[in-house]
Amino acid sequence: MTRIKFTQSLDELKEKLLAMAGMVEQAIQRTIEAYTSRDLALCHLVIGSEQDINRMEREIDQLAIDLLAMEQPMARDLRFIIAVIRINADLERVGDQAVSVARRVRDLGMFASLDLPVDVPRLGMLAAAMVRKALQAFIEENAELAQSVLAMDDEVDELNWGAYRAIGNLIRANVDVTDQALNVLIIARSLERVGDHATNIAEDVIFWVRGTDVRHEAK
Amino acid sequence: MTRIKFTQSLDELKEKLLAMAGMVEQAIQRTIEAYTSRDLALCHLVIGSEQDINRMEREIDQLAIDLLAMEQPMARDLRFIIAVIRINADLERVGDQAVSVARRVRDLGMFASLDLPVDVPRLGMLAAAMVRKALQAFIEENAELAQSVLAMDDEVDELNWGAYRAIGNLIRANVDVTDQALNVLIIARSLERVGDHATNIAEDVIFWVRGTDVRHEAK
Repeated sequence: MTRIKFTQSLDELKEKLLAMAGMVEQAIQRTIEAYTSRDLALCHLVIGSEQDINRMEREIDQLAIDLLAMEQPMARDLRFIIAVIRINADLERVGDQAVSVARRVRDLGMFASLDLPVDVPRLGMLAAAMVRKALQAFIEENAELAQSVLAMDDEVDELNWGAYRAIGNLIRANVDVTDQALNVLIIARSLERVGDHATNIAEDVIFWVRGTDVRHEAK
Repeated sequence: MTRIKFTQSLDELKEKLLAMAGMVEQAIQRTIEAYTSRDLALCHLVIGSEQDINRMEREIDQLAIDLLAMEQPMARDLRFIIAVIRINADLERVGDQAVSVARRVRDLGMFASLDLPVDVPRLGMLAAAMVRKALQAFIEENAELAQSVLAMDDEVDELNWGAYRAIGNLIRANVDVTDQALNVLIIARSLERVGDHATNIAEDVIFWVRGTDVRHEAK
């Protein structure tokens, strides 16, 4: 493979990863919308997208591994391909969380609507913003932007803890809403996991761009 | 690097990953013990082990990436190194879950002991057994053994769902135990995630040994 051809293959890999990211971001976005509007059709759309996301994950991994096998890339190119393999895995798990939340929202549909003291949409939008920003950093090869994602995770964790406490209080005040409340607790926890995956992605971007491993430093 | 030297490096990588697995398995084991005996010292041991596990993760990744860069391995060796990078990430996340459970067990220590209708130790031991079996499959290069791990995940999921329902019933029967019950709910969910990571590891072993990507097939 010529250098030009190799560069084209790396671009293709990047394009595919961005397409994967787009699918996953849409799943999260739809999940939040489904929660807000109790829209069952949206839940099913998200649950149905799991297979497409999984297929894309395998396609990306295959391309990445083929490039490693055929091109023996060095230094920055090698780090790029490793970063893609890792980011790909995290994106797939964000998709899993979106599906898991969509299932919970579907279950919530069985209950009377309830004014909950937990701002799930805010938590969801914050987690989605982290994913988007981490991917933006990947596109721009911008380690500073990636760094700023790491700071956002504290806010997500705090919102999640607030949700946990609020749900305990809610149940104590009205035990009849236990089912809905537990459902929302699990939803909040899933969205917090999305934030964790975004953090992983941001760290992979920094690793690729700077050539240093920053994992666990910010923790 | 000669072929002999390269083989030695691959062995070293495998040894390090097994040491990492040992640390992580010990953390899970101690967490279950801490839950059973409400042993705060054990909780702190687990929480303190996070840094060692993180350090080991970086060491393994560095070695794997150096080998990719210097040796341009092909076919089975390449798949092996990619599998190590992935398994390493999953092991680190199992360690994270152990720490997260240990924190919850520590919090549980603040409450009166309670006879809960959730068999947390059984769930924990099953999840730990999945991790151990997946690693055993890795050591033996045994794709059939890895395959058997995938089936165990259904049992873990079922136990976790049972825990979820039991906790709802428990709270409805006695709202005063809400705090303890929510804590146990989160613990059960973390242990279920350990099972998910073990599943990922088993799939990586199959990918390495058979050269096929079985992810999502069993789902």
